[in-house]
Amino acid sequence: MKLAIDAMGGDHAPEAIVKGAVHAAETIEGVEITLVGDQEQINPFLKGQTNIKVVHTTEVITSEDEPVRAVRRKKNASMVLMAKEVKEGRADGCVSAGNTGALMSAGLFVVGRMEGVERPALSPTLPTQDGQGFLMLDVGANVDAKPEHLLQYAVIGSIYAENVRKISKPRVGLLNVGTEDGKGTDLTKKTFQLLKEAPINFIGNVEARDLLDGAADVVVTDGFTGNIALKTIEGTAMTMFSMMKKTFMSNIKTKIAAGLAKNDLRKLKGQLDYSEYGGAGLFGLAAPVIKAHGSSNERAAYNAIRQACEMIELDVTQTISNTLKTIQSEEEKK
Amino acid sequence: MKLAIDAMGGDHAPEAIVKGAVHAAETIEGVEITLVGDQEQINPFLKGQTNIKVVHTTEVITSEDEPVRAVRRKKNASMVLMAKEVKEGRADGCVSAGNTGALMSAGLFVVGRMEGVERPALSPTLPTQDGQGFLMLDVGANVDAKPEHLLQYAVIGSIYAENVRKISKPRVGLLNVGTEDGKGTDLTKKTFQLLKEAPINFIGNVEARDLLDGAADVVVTDGFTGNIALKTIEGTAMTMFSMMKKTFMSNIKTKIAAGLAKNDLRKLKGQLDYSEYGGAGLFGLAAPVIKAHGSSNERAAYNAIRQACEMIELDVTQTISNTLKTIQSEEEKK
Repeated sequence: MKLAIDAMGGDHAPEAIVKGAVHAAETIEGVEITLVGDQEQINPFLKGQTNIKVVHTTEVITSEDEPVRAVRRKKNASMVLMAKEVKEGRADGCVSAGNTGALMSAGLFVVGRMEGVERPALSPTLPTQDGQGFLMLDVGANVDAKPEHLLQYAVIGSIYAENVRKISKPRVGLLNVGTEDGKGTDLTKKTFQLLKEAPINFIGNVEARDLLDGAADVVVTDGFTGNIALKTIEGTAMTMFSMMKKTFMSNIKTKIAAGLAKNDLRKLKGQLDYSEYGGAGLFGLAAPVIKAHGSSNERAAYNAIRQACEMIELDVTQTISNTLKTIQSEEEKK
Repeated sequence: MKLAIDAMGGDHAPEAIVKGAVHAAETIEGVEITLVGDQEQINPFLKGQTNIKVVHTTEVITSEDEPVRAVRRKKNASMVLMAKEVKEGRADGCVSAGNTGALMSAGLFVVGRMEGVERPALSPTLPTQDGQGFLMLDVGANVDAKPEHLLQYAVIGSIYAENVRKISKPRVGLLNVGTEDGKGTDLTKKTFQLLKEAPINFIGNVEARDLLDGAADVVVTDGFTGNIALKTIEGTAMTMFSMMKKTFMSNIKTKIAAGLAKNDLRKLKGQLDYSEYGGAGLFGLAAPVIKAHGSSNERAAYNAIRQACEMIELDVTQTISNTLKTIQSEEEKK
């Protein structure tokens, strides 16, 4: 199991990424890791593992870079060389905490799409109250999606949830403005019909209001809507934590209360931290590509690496490819 | 200023609605209110105001009713008769806390559209951290929107914010997946170009993450996306309050903390309660139609009534109509 990792991507790179990789190299059986980045900056955090090697480069894509242009022009950027490791067969999958748009471009143009997949989807696992989490796809890889794309997302998400997240018969829902059949836009109406026929456990429309209550294990939507929903969850949670903080700092009674409940409130924040659930998969590519959260610490980097390893070990890409081919050949018979 | 009110719509009707109306009748100068609903259920809450009369009916549209069908078939429902008061000139505007979809249908089919408006928009004012709030439109009246519809929403929202919410040069933003120009779907790209030319203070794209931080005073989006964003805010806030409650009940220390901070935490909840900002306007109709929140208490009902009165008094409908006509005639000259 060979993994390429962009050591330079993310707010706490390279330290958090390299430390996460070292932990993975020590604990995940059979893993071989290639760190791509500045050897000099990486070295201090290595511990002499024989299953880690470094591909040296000093070029980096930053979060300010325009994604598509950056991938095309910065040919020696750590992220681009990481993707090349996969493309040229020296790695089975890759992980980066860098610029999301650039990783989507590198995935699309360097790693390449899975045969039969028109548009890859970006898919994080988001927190739910019960700690199970749910997979949402797409959250922004493909903003002008067609019903056929959403059908593929549903199948891909279902296979991932079943294999990697170990959810038997994952409940697949379509994000919509109401739960009744026939709700929504032209896109959701057409998608609804396709999902009814798909080899998945389709539970119908789900409302945005019920997402964090675990209304579905896999939530399918177009990249525009998914991005809005994801960022609305993030924004609302951030605003509430900030308002809560102000509330607790407002007078002496609340300050005492804050002192008493501090650890428990921190746990609450942890429950909503979705880096605990691993990174976001860029699904529909020829190999597993995982986007770790930009603010990844060592633990989040490790989780994303472990996730890529599981996808490789369970051959999720092949299962997805086979299932999509079966669906396509059945469609053609009709 | 004559107002028709659906006394039977909402979770706490008729009590909360009638009490809110009584308060409005006592405090808003020059208002004449017609309550539509079951006289027998309404009477106990009336206090003999001479500026309130009742149009009696026992038929009601419930939250379970299919909106369009209900409005067509339940011809004597309180909501339908309320809309008729406006249609037939006996009222200048109306307020209901009932079934949102049915109110949109009653608005569209009974009150009727404003000349030149293709599709009305549902527009609540949502809370921000600083207590200013922002107007979002559309949140679900028109799920398959065109760029021209979004242009009208921007103009309507801007006029409303300036006149009723007293915000000088309201900042109008387009909800999008990134803040840079040229982001998003075919719809948002085309809309962006139209908004740049419109007679509004267009500040460009805004991200869902920044909504509650007050990124714009008026946020323009299609009804599908707006509905998802609105319900995601609601769902995330509800989930967080529920998790917070569990956290505070988890052990003796946190229970003491909860006791100390209770009043302040309740205030926090109040800050996020958007019924404080009045009801949601159904903009683009021939007269002001306000949707009060389904869970409206007396205060929320009063706020929605006051809002309708302000729209009538300031002649917002006429201002919107004139502005849209000017834009259209300029378009035609080109």
